Amino acid sequence: MYTVEELHRLFIEKLKKESFVKEPKELYEPFNYMLSLGGKRIRPLLTLIACDMFGGKIEQALSGAMAVELFHNFTLIHDDIMDEAPLRRGSPTVHIKYSTNPAILSGDAMLLYAYIFLSTLDTNILKKCITLFNKTGIEVCEGQQIDLNFEKLDEVTLADYLHMIKLKTAVLPAFALQLGAIIAGANEEQTQQIYDFGINIGLAFQLQDDILDSFGDEKVFGKKNGGDIIKNKKTILLTHALEVADDSIKQELKKWVTNDSEEKITVVKKIFSELAVKDFAVNRMKSYHEIATQYLLQINIPDTHKQVLRNFAEKLLYRDI
Amino acid sequence: MYTVEELHRLFIEKLKKESFVKEPKELYEPFNYMLSLGGKRIRPLLTLIACDMFGGKIEQALSGAMAVELFHNFTLIHDDIMDEAPLRRGSPTVHIKYSTNPAILSGDAMLLYAYIFLSTLDTNILKKCITLFNKTGIEVCEGQQIDLNFEKLDEVTLADYLHMIKLKTAVLPAFALQLGAIIAGANEEQTQQIYDFGINIGLAFQLQDDILDSFGDEKVFGKKNGGDIIKNKKTILLTHALEVADDSIKQELKKWVTNDSEEKITVVKKIFSELAVKDFAVNRMKSYHEIATQYLLQINIPDTHKQVLRNFAEKLLYRDI
Repeated sequence: MYTVEELHRLFIEKLKKESFVKEPKELYEPFNYMLSLGGKRIRPLLTLIACDMFGGKIEQALSGAMAVELFHNFTLIHDDIMDEAPLRRGSPTVHIKYSTNPAILSGDAMLLYAYIFLSTLDTNILKKCITLFNKTGIEVCEGQQIDLNFEKLDEVTLADYLHMIKLKTAVLPAFALQLGAIIAGANEEQTQQIYDFGINIGLAFQLQDDILDSFGDEKVFGKKNGGDIIKNKKTILLTHALEVADDSIKQELKKWVTNDSEEKITVVKKIFSELAVKDFAVNRMKSYHEIATQYLLQINIPDTHKQVLRNFAEKLLYRDI
Repeated sequence: MYTVEELHRLFIEKLKKESFVKEPKELYEPFNYMLSLGGKRIRPLLTLIACDMFGGKIEQALSGAMAVELFHNFTLIHDDIMDEAPLRRGSPTVHIKYSTNPAILSGDAMLLYAYIFLSTLDTNILKKCITLFNKTGIEVCEGQQIDLNFEKLDEVTLADYLHMIKLKTAVLPAFALQLGAIIAGANEEQTQQIYDFGINIGLAFQLQDDILDSFGDEKVFGKKNGGDIIKNKKTILLTHALEVADDSIKQELKKWVTNDSEEKITVVKKIFSELAVKDFAVNRMKSYHEIATQYLLQINIPDTHKQVLRNFAEKLLYRDI
C-alpha cells in the first residue's frame, strides 16, 4: 500500500500533467491561479487512499481525484465571491485578483472540467459515480445557501448548524472516499460504510475548525484567534452558547454582534468559558470521530488496510486543541 | 411524427412535472423563477425534433431536452450577472430580483441539475452524451469569455466575431440536435451531420438576430431598433463595416462609441446603409442557412422525416427582415 506522502506526490504529478493552458487566457488564468494556490489536497487524497485501501489501481482513481479537487476549487471560487472574501490561502481570492466576472466564469468552467475527468471513468461504474457526484454537488449548493441564510438570522439552533455543515462540508469528503472505493470495486455495503465514515469525519473536522478558530494555539494554527467571533459566525461554539445561556448572558452575547473591537474576542471567549462550550464542542467532535471509527472498523477488509486512512484522519483532526 | 406544437406541449408538461420545490427556498425560488420566464424553448425542442426525426422515443428524449434547457438557463442567469442586464424576457433578471449571490448559486445548481437529467439516459449512450455535453459546456464558457473580452476592444475582425458566436451561441443548438439523434440511435455519420446542420443554423440565427436588432420591423420584432448600436456591440454589421470602411468613415464610426444619443442610431445606420452591410449580413446569413440545408439533405433518412426540422428552422430564421 501507498503512504499518504506517495499518494500526494502522485496527485500533484497528475495535476501538473493536466494542461489547462488554453484560450481564452482571461478564462484559464484565473482557473490555473486557483489551482496553484495549493492547499492540503485532502479531498483528492481521500479518493486515492480509499481506492488503495480496497485494492484498486491508483492510476484509475487519479481522474476521480481530479474531479473532486476541481469541484472543491469551483465551490471555493464562487463561495469567496459570495462571502466577499479578500484572501484564500494567504493570497488574493480569484475575484479580487481578476474581478468578479472571470471568477464566476472560471468557476463554471472548473465545474465542467470536474465532469470531464469524471467522465473518463469505466463505463460500468460511470452512471453510479456521476449520479452520486450530482447529488453531492446539489447538497453542497444547498449547504452554501443555508449558510448564507444563517448570516441574516440572530440565532441558529445547533441542529440546524450541524445540518448545514453536513451539506456544505461533510458530504464532499464522504463522496471522495466513496468514489475511491467504487473505482476499486468495493461492494455496496463497503462504499456505504466508507461514506458514513466520511460524513462523520467531515463533521468532526468542521467542529475542530470552529474550536481552533477561537481556542487554537496561535503559533501552531498560524493565525490569530477570534476570526469567527469578530464575524459573528454561527459555529458550534456560538450556537451551543445561545442554547445554554440564560437570558442575561444571551443579551450580553447579542449586544456584541454589532461591535468589531478586539475587546469583543476577549469578552465572548470569556462567556464561552463560563458556559463550557469548548468542552462541549470537543466532546461532540470526539463523538463524531468515534462514530467514524466504528464505521471504519465494520468494513470487512483486513484492519492493516485501514491504517493509512485512520492515521490520516487523526492527523488532520488533532492538529492542536 | 409529432408536430412542433405537440413536442412543445410535451416538453412543457415534463417541465411542470419535474418538481424543483425544494429547500432551502432561497436557492430554489430564483431557480424556478428563471424557468418560469418562458422563452421559446428552442433548444430542448431541437432535441425532441431530432429524436423524432430518427425514429426515437420522445419519452427518452425528454430528459435530454430538460438537460439542454437547464444548461441554457444556467448560462442566462450567469451571463445576465456578468452583463449587468436588468431585464430578461421583459422581467427582472434573477440577480436583480433576488440579488447576486442567489443568482450565482442557483445558476450553479441549475448546471448540476442539467447533469442529473442527463445521467438518467441509458447506460450504453451515457458516456458519449456526457462527454459531448461537457465539451459543449466548456465551449459556451469560452465563448462567453471571448465576448466579454470583445467589450474592451476597439475593433474585432469578422472572423473573430464568427468564432465567438459559434462557441457562445451555435454549439448548444448543435449539441441539442446531436443529443436527440444519439438518443434515437442514429449512427456516427448522422449525428455528425445533424450537429453540422445545428452549427450552421445557429450561426445563421445569431446573424439574423444582429440584423433584426438594427433593421427589424419594430412592430413585428417587438422592440425598438438600435439596441446593439447604442451598446457598441460587436455584431456582424459593425465588424464588417469596420473592415470595409475607409479611414474617414472608420473614424466617424469610432467617434460615436462614446455617444449615447438617439442620433447615434440614425447616423450609424446611415453609415451601415452606405457600406451595404445589411445586404452583406443577409447574404452571409443565407449562406449559413444554405450550408445547414445541405447537411440536412445529406442525412440518409426519408426527406419527409426532415420536414419538421426544416420548417422549424426556417420559421425561426425568417421572422422578419
